[in-house]
Amino acid sequence: MSEVDIGMGKAGRRAYSLDEVAIVPSRRTRDPEDVDLAWEIDAFRFELPVIASGMDGVVSPTTAIAFGQLGAVAALNLEGLWTRYEDPTELLVEIAEAPDDEVSERLRAIYREPVKPDLIGQRVKEIRKAGVISCGAVTPHRVEDLTDAIVAAELDLLVIQGTVVSAEHVTKGVDDPLNLKTFVRRLDLPVLVGGCSSYQAALHLMRTGAAGILVGVGAGRSSSTRRVLGTGVAQATAIADARAARMRHLDETGVYVHIIADGGMATGGDIAKAIVCGADAVMLGAPFAAAVDAPGRGHHWGLAAAHPTLPRGSRVAVGTRGTLEQILTGPAPDDRGDLNLMGALRRAMALCGHATLKELQKADLVVTS
Amino acid sequence: MSEVDIGMGKAGRRAYSLDEVAIVPSRRTRDPEDVDLAWEIDAFRFELPVIASGMDGVVSPTTAIAFGQLGAVAALNLEGLWTRYEDPTELLVEIAEAPDDEVSERLRAIYREPVKPDLIGQRVKEIRKAGVISCGAVTPHRVEDLTDAIVAAELDLLVIQGTVVSAEHVTKGVDDPLNLKTFVRRLDLPVLVGGCSSYQAALHLMRTGAAGILVGVGAGRSSSTRRVLGTGVAQATAIADARAARMRHLDETGVYVHIIADGGMATGGDIAKAIVCGADAVMLGAPFAAAVDAPGRGHHWGLAAAHPTLPRGSRVAVGTRGTLEQILTGPAPDDRGDLNLMGALRRAMALCGHATLKELQKADLVVTS
Amino acid sequence: MSEVDIGMGKAGRRAYSLDEVAIVPSRRTRDPEDVDLAWEIDAFRFELPVIASGMDGVVSPTTAIAFGQLGAVAALNLEGLWTRYEDPTELLVEIAEAPDDEVSERLRAIYREPVKPDLIGQRVKEIRKAGVISCGAVTPHRVEDLTDAIVAAELDLLVIQGTVVSAEHVTKGVDDPLNLKTFVRRLDLPVLVGGCSSYQAALHLMRTGAAGILVGVGAGRSSSTRRVLGTGVAQATAIADARAARMRHLDETGVYVHIIADGGMATGGDIAKAIVCGADAVMLGAPFAAAVDAPGRGHHWGLAAAHPTLPRGSRVAVGTRGTLEQILTGPAPDDRGDLNLMGALRRAMALCGHATLKELQKADLVVTS
Amino acid sequence: MSEVDIGMGKAGRRAYSLDEVAIVPSRRTRDPEDVDLAWEIDAFRFELPVIASGMDGVVSPTTAIAFGQLGAVAALNLEGLWTRYEDPTELLVEIAEAPDDEVSERLRAIYREPVKPDLIGQRVKEIRKAGVISCGAVTPHRVEDLTDAIVAAELDLLVIQGTVVSAEHVTKGVDDPLNLKTFVRRLDLPVLVGGCSSYQAALHLMRTGAAGILVGVGAGRSSSTRRVLGTGVAQATAIADARAARMRHLDETGVYVHIIADGGMATGGDIAKAIVCGADAVMLGAPFAAAVDAPGRGHHWGLAAAHPTLPRGSRVAVGTRGTLEQILTGPAPDDRGDLNLMGALRRAMALCGHATLKELQKADLVVTS
Repeated sequence: MSEVDIGMGKAGRRAYSLDEVAIVPSRRTRDPEDVDLAWEIDAFRFELPVIASGMDGVVSPTTAIAFGQLGAVAALNLEGLWTRYEDPTELLVEIAEAPDDEVSERLRAIYREPVKPDLIGQRVKEIRKAGVISCGAVTPHRVEDLTDAIVAAELDLLVIQGTVVSAEHVTKGVDDPLNLKTFVRRLDLPVLVGGCSSYQAALHLMRTGAAGILVGVGAGRSSSTRRVLGTGVAQATAIADARAARMRHLDETGVYVHIIADGGMATGGDIAKAIVCGADAVMLGAPFAAAVDAPGRGHHWGLAAAHPTLPRGSRVAVGTRGTLEQILTGPAPDDRGDLNLMGALRRAMALCGHATLKELQKADLVVTS
Repeated sequence: MSEVDIGMGKAGRRAYSLDEVAIVPSRRTRDPEDVDLAWEIDAFRFELPVIASGMDGVVSPTTAIAFGQLGAVAALNLEGLWTRYEDPTELLVEIAEAPDDEVSERLRAIYREPVKPDLIGQRVKEIRKAGVISCGAVTPHRVEDLTDAIVAAELDLLVIQGTVVSAEHVTKGVDDPLNLKTFVRRLDLPVLVGGCSSYQAALHLMRTGAAGILVGVGAGRSSSTRRVLGTGVAQATAIADARAARMRHLDETGVYVHIIADGGMATGGDIAKAIVCGADAVMLGAPFAAAVDAPGRGHHWGLAAAHPTLPRGSRVAVGTRGTLEQILTGPAPDDRGDLNLMGALRRAMALCGHATLKELQKADLVVTS
Repeated sequence: MSEVDIGMGKAGRRAYSLDEVAIVPSRRTRDPEDVDLAWEIDAFRFELPVIASGMDGVVSPTTAIAFGQLGAVAALNLEGLWTRYEDPTELLVEIAEAPDDEVSERLRAIYREPVKPDLIGQRVKEIRKAGVISCGAVTPHRVEDLTDAIVAAELDLLVIQGTVVSAEHVTKGVDDPLNLKTFVRRLDLPVLVGGCSSYQAALHLMRTGAAGILVGVGAGRSSSTRRVLGTGVAQATAIADARAARMRHLDETGVYVHIIADGGMATGGDIAKAIVCGADAVMLGAPFAAAVDAPGRGHHWGLAAAHPTLPRGSRVAVGTRGTLEQILTGPAPDDRGDLNLMGALRRAMALCGHATLKELQKADLVVTS
Repeated sequence: MSEVDIGMGKAGRRAYSLDEVAIVPSRRTRDPEDVDLAWEIDAFRFELPVIASGMDGVVSPTTAIAFGQLGAVAALNLEGLWTRYEDPTELLVEIAEAPDDEVSERLRAIYREPVKPDLIGQRVKEIRKAGVISCGAVTPHRVEDLTDAIVAAELDLLVIQGTVVSAEHVTKGVDDPLNLKTFVRRLDLPVLVGGCSSYQAALHLMRTGAAGILVGVGAGRSSSTRRVLGTGVAQATAIADARAARMRHLDETGVYVHIIADGGMATGGDIAKAIVCGADAVMLGAPFAAAVDAPGRGHHWGLAAAHPTLPRGSRVAVGTRGTLEQILTGPAPDDRGDLNLMGALRRAMALCGHATLKELQKADLVVTS
């Protein structure tokens, strides 16, 4: 641990972002065609180690199916537009077209509509009917209310996600706050839970029985957590700390809990670096918002953007660059790096000589300035 | 102490700014509503750990009352416009509207008017009459002259403030320079004194009997101390050094002297980081100058801006962003981070699992680039 | 080795770019006229330690001759326009003039034309006829196909070059992949092979029997390897690691394998720094593309820019600055540093007191931020 | 010594620029009026620790007198316009007004005019007649030719200055190169010699018998040495290394050789930091070029800008900011930091509690990013 003295009365650890590391090619190279990008969690196997983030500008039932058919998986926001409204198409247009100075107010108004439990069932059914694995995201403070609807919907994979999610949420004045330690084990479906950004927090989330944890607090480029709240750990360090927690948890329990790097990645190189740091898969939001077929029409926003007194994040215009398929698996017409993320990951692995994601995790890194 | 060799003949310590550190969430989270932001010093309790800086563009008797009613406290500049002029309203307009190339000259002219001791009494009375705690700021070289007026005014809290204030000011040719070591103890009201920026300087200021010390030299974004004079310590380190001085002083005397971080903070996250470094409260100037109801009409300046031969700082235009209340306690309509500073502090503490400021002081930090 | 903990579960080495180092003058100075820039490899002696990179925008048979006459050597791309087309002059104009949004498509189309083995012979003959040393570059996956043509052409010096080239390329589904370990030794001409960017990779390339290795992965300013693929090692470190490999290989075999720093250098100072890190010579592409007499008419591009699904690099417009001769040996009319690269190298050596390149390799470096 | 591994085969020392350090206030403060800025070297005492650099845009006989009368000293370039031309006034105007793309050529033409030894005598006489200490600068390769003229002129202080000057210049083909080791001692006037930038180089220059050495290679903001040649040491480290050499030389010989920091300083704070690193005085060029009464009319340039094949530096337009007096001793109307350099140095010393330059040398530094 690179502990440094901030001053005579306080020390801190040096933390590194993904931008500060780079992968060292090994002494072998491989053909890109021989590289295997598959990832397995619980009973599921995915051809690509990518989860689309549960943002309404990125994941609709339609794009969830598209992601599944391409080999990835997408988390539908179970507290988003598609479970609040029968047909949010008009609202998505409205959000995309609202003037900058009105959009926050409009988001607050649109998200005041309550979540309808029966719409959760309907959306999950739409996705499952297409033959792809269904995945939905909820926030910790709503998950108990929505559990019955989620279970009834036969969702395949549940993501419990917030800016920071801990295994021990302390609440005064509420008789029975959500206790993830017992809640996750009671559920009969695999759960991914996070974000978290430290060894201790990751270890305790692993101990809840989650199949995977989301690592990343304030790591996303569109996040304002770091700036507004001063909170967060640079992502390369956060992942590497969670990796140590995974090793300890595996040693103590024999259970391998997956690490999903969440936020702060824009290119296949970023994804490769996250995996070398220790991630098993990545969760991406903003990069997919630039798809012409994404519901946000070149925009993305998070639930926190609709917070009434302290919004974090807002509607971010990213423009459109290509189809979801182009973004995920190419082809890319140029070298900007935001298209064909999986092709770039595959080529990075080939150049560095790694045939599988588990091999890639063992690659060497250099730290640069 | 991270001592580095600058060269073979000189070493230095590595110092860190608040921008270079970030708070690591703990393994617990809390509800924002359960977080307590209260701060106590001497006989006073404040709901919010914020002192508005004694700048004429920020604190007038009217805004001092507003700050007090919101749970904070504001230091009125006792050598400023409100104690030099019966009614400085016109002058404030003039300063705000002066062309850039004339404003320095105008400031010098306006501040040539002498301070009137009886106006000190009148201003303090106005503030106390509103039922809020009165606080006033003076410079070290004027404090003795103004002591009688200050004591007569029954001021609650005195700030003795300069760019750098030491417990041992050395003067040739003056029979009896201000000796803070005896002066502070003689006063019958709690005194905050600073700025300072090293362990030794902080320790010696604590030994004067001050209730609190201001930490920060050249830390403010509008300060030119660092650039023009080459002097100053990056703020995270300055606070952490003062924290070590506080521990030693507490060990030697049993007295806990408060650390007020002064300068260089713009968001609730910055405030949270200053507290994790060791601050008990913060002094803010520039962030409040953007209040529509601040006297500076979107501008701020310090006394040093009126220096006749070597001005430091000048009139800085910051525009207007919202009311004082919005800046301090929200609501914020967007995620720029400059509104609802206390809401952001509260949320940062909740996410990181800390219920009180003393708990927050124990949080972990990472150092980033 | 400056190993740093990226996090609790992953460490990395600190790597430095050439921009982060500077040469310390020794306690001697010399006259620039007394400095010897000559470099010898195998049976060849060059007055200047520079290889022009095998880019079609930089090296044509004509400019290869010019480089040779100036004391350097240029690698003609043996899979480029001059071995695909009898006369590519029109195509070079077309590439230079294509609109930005069409150039990638045009490059792909133009480079679909097959390489003609007999054109290889013809181009090498043109160069040799002018009395300069002929040098050609091929990619690893084409080198076996083209070997007969290359040998028949009596090429003097062969460069086997790819983004990353390893001594051990692993391929499934191909009966007999290129095995550099045996292939290089079988050839009867000196071979330079690379890029590589680590001690192990460099050592294994040296063991193939190569006369020199190219060091640099993603180091070029026009390269997108680092950004898109996340792969690469900062160049000062990559060269210094290869230097350690050269020492070990020399110790084990008595054979001195040359290190050619490739990419990331724009000025004579950059070249000097690469040599101090351990390089024997440098390979430069982009800096020469700005020659008025370069075939790219102020543009350069690599083969990877024509990749059908994941292009890296593209046509880069650099404008024109002077003649090839001015860029290489001056005179320079101003101090931008991109003209008279060898004059600057010579002067740097004189100021620092080093008479030969081998002496320069022993100079002291400082690391800066 | 902070040695870092650049790679496995090469190490380097970490070096710091003046921008990376800041002065820590001590536990004392002083009145600015009590600060003494005087500096003594050989038989001379100067009220201000400043030498104006021998640039034709900065120092003419007239401004040399003005600098002397203000308490500083100015080095007239003895190979500059005033010793090549009887009256260069017209040429100075021409240089200032030449279009950017013609100025390099004009500089080369103007500086082709030979130096006239009798003009050296005339210029020194003009300066001495005004009652100020005369100082002139020559390059190492001209100093022997001009020695007779310099001695005959009864110059008070000689500066032998080049980009890098070493005690051991090695020349082939010249029977008797300048040997500073014997040359300096033979002269009957105090000599300042440099630049240098390492412990060894500084130590050997001190052993020539020089009264002072100039420290700084490529440190000036207008210098292109670092960029074009890759050569130089960040200035804080260069000064601190020279300080160690001064200690050793003092220990070995009992002689205190002065360190003149040269280049890279723009404000009083920069000057203060150079002194804390170990400088006894500073040499400044560019900051004075902005004087309305400087000969360059808002421009400066060095001799190297007129180099025929590899110019370093060029004519740099800095505009005009105030009189020489304002730049040196104020008053400053604003807080940009480029006026009243000595007032800022004085105030920095007062804030940090140091009464003399020798005390300031002992101040603490922090290293920042």
